Parts: sequence; structure tokens; C-alpha cells
Amino acid sequence: LISKQFVVDAMIPKKSLPAVPMASESAPVNIALVKYWGKRNEELHLPITDSLSVALSLMTTTSVRQAPCKDEIILNGQRLPESSAFFLRTARFLDLFRPNSSFFFTVETKNDVPTAAGLASSASGFAALIKAINTLFDWRLSPEKLSILARMGSGSASRSIASGFVLWRKGVLEDGEDSYAECIGNPWDELRFGVLLVTSEAKNIGSGEAMRRTVKTSPVYSLWPEVVERDLKAVYQAIGSKDFVLFGEAVERNALFMHATMQTAWPPICYWKPETILAMNSVWSSRSQGLPVYFTMDAGPNVKVFYPVSKEKEVLAFFPSLWQIPLLW
Amino acid sequence: LISKQFVVDAMIPKKSLPAVPMASESAPVNIALVKYWGKRNEELHLPITDSLSVALSLMTTTSVRQAPCKDEIILNGQRLPESSAFFLRTARFLDLFRPNSSFFFTVETKNDVPTAAGLASSASGFAALIKAINTLFDWRLSPEKLSILARMGSGSASRSIASGFVLWRKGVLEDGEDSYAECIGNPWDELRFGVLLVTSEAKNIGSGEAMRRTVKTSPVYSLWPEVVERDLKAVYQAIGSKDFVLFGEAVERNALFMHATMQTAWPPICYWKPETILAMNSVWSSRSQGLPVYFTMDAGPNVKVFYPVSKEKEVLAFFPSLWQIPLLW
Repeated sequence: LISKQFVVDAMIPKKSLPAVPMASESAPVNIALVKYWGKRNEELHLPITDSLSVALSLMTTTSVRQAPCKDEIILNGQRLPESSAFFLRTARFLDLFRPNSSFFFTVETKNDVPTAAGLASSASGFAALIKAINTLFDWRLSPEKLSILARMGSGSASRSIASGFVLWRKGVLEDGEDSYAECIGNPWDELRFGVLLVTSEAKNIGSGEAMRRTVKTSPVYSLWPEVVERDLKAVYQAIGSKDFVLFGEAVERNALFMHATMQTAWPPICYWKPETILAMNSVWSSRSQGLPVYFTMDAGPNVKVFYPVSKEKEVLAFFPSLWQIPLLW
Repeated sequence: LISKQFVVDAMIPKKSLPAVPMASESAPVNIALVKYWGKRNEELHLPITDSLSVALSLMTTTSVRQAPCKDEIILNGQRLPESSAFFLRTARFLDLFRPNSSFFFTVETKNDVPTAAGLASSASGFAALIKAINTLFDWRLSPEKLSILARMGSGSASRSIASGFVLWRKGVLEDGEDSYAECIGNPWDELRFGVLLVTSEAKNIGSGEAMRRTVKTSPVYSLWPEVVERDLKAVYQAIGSKDFVLFGEAVERNALFMHATMQTAWPPICYWKPETILAMNSVWSSRSQGLPVYFTMDAGPNVKVFYPVSKEKEVLAFFPSLWQIPLLW
């Protein structure tokens, strides 16, 4: 079994002390169009399939500097207790990068988006953090290497290294050296995105555990790799030809398929809330009235929609509570 | 292509006039434990898989007699307009059994259960109707033949001919001669059933169309036959050994799988309402508190639960709105 530390040590230059007193970097939230769902390596967060996302203009900005005697993590202005899950997960990630065992970090991180919205993901967080660490130590790592290192924190963080459409290739190597994300395709300026906010309640099951249980117990999961291939091909083609209907159908069916794999796991997993059903139905009803709106959903209850700018006015009239978020190209 | 009329003509004795002035028969509502989902023959309602149900002590009672000059259908005391869907569907079924083209029926049918509850299915209706026709003409058909003829009205009606646990074998013959239902297993007196009523709104898509679209477009449907085999085996074994947990798990996962096949069809099909999500979650939460309660769902939003009589008190305390319905052995 290859450890994270082994991968990190093989990748970064000889560890040294900070090159600058403090470094600050940003990374965008990303929304998966074709989902990352299932790991081939739990430790290294190596995925079973490729996945494809688009970046949002919602950023996490993180600064790092050396701390005198212990790690210190400040999230949106609040110092976190050392026993909090966020602190522990971040500190474990920092462990990989300490020049020596008595080196500590102060990490200050800010999200553009209220954590409550269910969009402030760990993805942008780990991406911003590794970028800031890279700058602090002046490692000058390539985007590919930053993507691989971000993945050590959270799989989908590998995609928050770039903007625009981002493809995370699953790779085939055991150490994940070829499992990183990169920008593909050109900006699609006419594409619009928004969120139908459902709830900010905490999930009752984390996505890591949900993935594991699904891979292990759902008979539907056996079809997931070919479904991803089918949907990737369609989204690719749609991006190239700016075919919105092709794009929307592939994105929506991919998300519904992912949820079908969970629903057929045992015990069953359902992230949907009552308002999720209302939101899905309102999207379907808008389509039946001729509006080209398609949704995606992640491992949570919120419904996120895509539509073309040409129909923006009608879409906003139909969904008065839609929270529009610009894409980041 | 074999027509319904061909099958009927091969099965019933020479058609003659009524042997009695009027005949009245009853048939129970049935709840599928392992679902009927997908047809191998649309005309004859021949299924792709076996299915298994249990009968409820909710009956449809139907009387038939000859009518002077045109069909007349009275549902729960209300004479139906000839243009109503119910009238048309029933009259088309009656067509199969008229001794001559100028023979008309008066059909009076009553459901124990308010149609609004989403439980008054066409299954008990067609089963009661064919039983009454059989008595009216004194055909003395075997239960197997009645099951086949009920199937001409609605697939699941083939299972409403018997009480208790009922297995509908898919059969392999082209004319469906071997596709009928029969009682299997012994009564399970400790088994309890109830409904968490969600809504009585009309469905926006009929189950026939939903089946067709699912079979045609859902990649998940390809797994359905083996899932049915797996779940049938488990329910069989559970019935034999009165193993409630084995029973409940198989029943619940079978229903969720059926809904997963719809959800992955295109356009997607979702019968769930917001309250469906609440009901499913309350069942899961009752289990996490140690109550052995499992649900099933049909092509509709209501959630139906099974539990053992030994936990009846606790279950009723947990689900104060549960509508208990005795099973029919």
C-alpha cells in the first residue's frame, strides 16, 4: 500500500523553511458535470472513473504562515477548536508538508460562500491550501502536481486547481501520478448556472462513506463506469458544439444515475429532502413549458441548474428564488 | 401477434347467455413485495419477470348483469360518463366476453377503500369483474384461467385472484397460457401492514407508460431481472422461515430498485412527493431506533410499511398517522 507521504515525498523538492513570511492563494468551487463517485484507492483518493467539472466564481482564499508552537486554523474569522473535524482533517493534510516535526502552520481561510449554502466544499479549500503552501515554500510545482497534492486532501479538490471546464483523469498508475485534473475546452460564455437552495442542514452521511457503501453494496454501481463514459462523451461533444440540450441531458442523467446508485445501496442512501423533490419537479415543469433548464445534484439536497443566457429572463421569472452564480473561465 | 380475443376465445367455453340474472364477486387489493415492472408483451400484459404479492383485506366487489341497450358502469354509486377513461377501459375489457355484439353489461363496482387513497387499484377491479362474469355465465373456470383473464385487463390483476402470498409466474409461452398467479406459502399471522398516506393527487404519468419508457431508456433496467430473482429468493426464504428482517430488506430494496430504474429513464420519472421523502426518512429513523419497519412503494407516492405484530404498539406510537390494513389470508 502506497502512503500519501510516500507520494508527497516523491513529488516535492527537498523540504525547506518558508521562502516568504506568508503566502495567500485562491481556488474556485467546482461543480461536477460528470460525477466523481467511487474510489479505486481509498488512501490516495484515486477514482474509479474520470470526472468533469466547471469552475464557479466562488472562491476559497487561504493564507499560510509558520506558527510558533502549534497549528492554528482560522475559518471565516473564527479560530477552530483543535478537536473539530475541520481542524483535524486540515492538520492531517498539513502533516504531509511539514519541513520537520516541530514546524507548525497558521492557516487562515475564507469562503466567498456561506458554509451553510452547501457549496463551500472541501474541494476549493484543499486546492487553495496546497497552492498557498506551494507559494510559501516556493516549490513552483506544476498545476498537475498541485492537482495531485490537492487530491490528498479531497478527491474533488484535484479539480479546483483550474478554472473553466476541468477534466480529472482517473489514471491507471498505482501511485496516482497520472490521476490529475486539467482544463479542457474553451469558455462557454452563454452558459449560466444557479442554485435552488434547499437546506443547509448537515448531511447525515458523509460522501466518503456513501461512496464506499455504494461501491460495495449497490448492484447498479456495476454500470457506473460505462454510464460515465457515455455521459463524458456527450458533455465533451456538447461543449465543443455548444449544444445546450445535449449538455443538459447528459449532466442531469448523470446526476440522477449517481443518486440511483445510492438509493440501491444497502442500507439505502438518500440525500434528497422534500424541497429537493419540489425543485426537481419545478425544473421538469419548466422544461415542459419550453424552457431549456437542466439540473445536477451532488451528495446533498441542493438542486443546481444550467440554462442558456438567451433564456435568462424567463428562467429568473420561473425560478424567483434562483441564486445565480457566474462561472469562472 | 396474438390478440387478447384469440386468447379468450381459446379459453372460455362456447359463449352463451347468462346462466343467472346477476352475479356478484369480490377480489382483494394486492401489494407487490417483488414488483411487476416491464412487459415482454404489451398486448397481453406478459411480464418480463415473476412478481410476488400479498393480499389486503380491502376488496373490490363487483356485480354484472345484462343491460338492455348499452353498457352501464356504476363506480361507488356513481354512473360513469361513457367518455371517462375508466368506462372506456372497462368496456374494452367487456368486449372480450360478450356472447354477441348486441350484448351489453351493467357493471356495478364498489371499493372498500376510497379511490383517493391511491390503493384502489385496477388490479382488484379487473379480478372481481372477471370473477363476476365467470359466475354470470357459469363458466366454472379454474383459478389459473381466471388469473389469465384478469391479466387481460391489467397485469397485476392476475395476482388479485387469490389471497395470501401470491406468485405470478412470468411464463415463457407466447400466448401467456403459463403466465398466471397462484397462492404460495402459508399465512404469516405475525406480519402487519400499514400505509403512510402521502397524497391522493392524480399521477402525472401512468404506470404503463412509465414501464415502457423505463424498459426502453434506463440502463439500470438491464439489471432488473437478476434483481428480481435475488429478491424473490430472499422473500421466499423469509416467508418459509418467518424471518422478518430478511423479508423487510428484500421488499424495501426491491421497491427502491424499481424506483431507481425510473429515475434513470429519460425523461426521468419520479413518483415521489415531498412527503414521500419524509415518510422514507421516518422509516429509516425508526429502524435506527431499533424498530423493525420496512417499506415498499409502487408507481405512486405513498409509502407502505411492514412490521411484526410483536412491535405493533411501538410502531403505532412512532407513526401516529399509520393506516393499518389487515392482510388477507
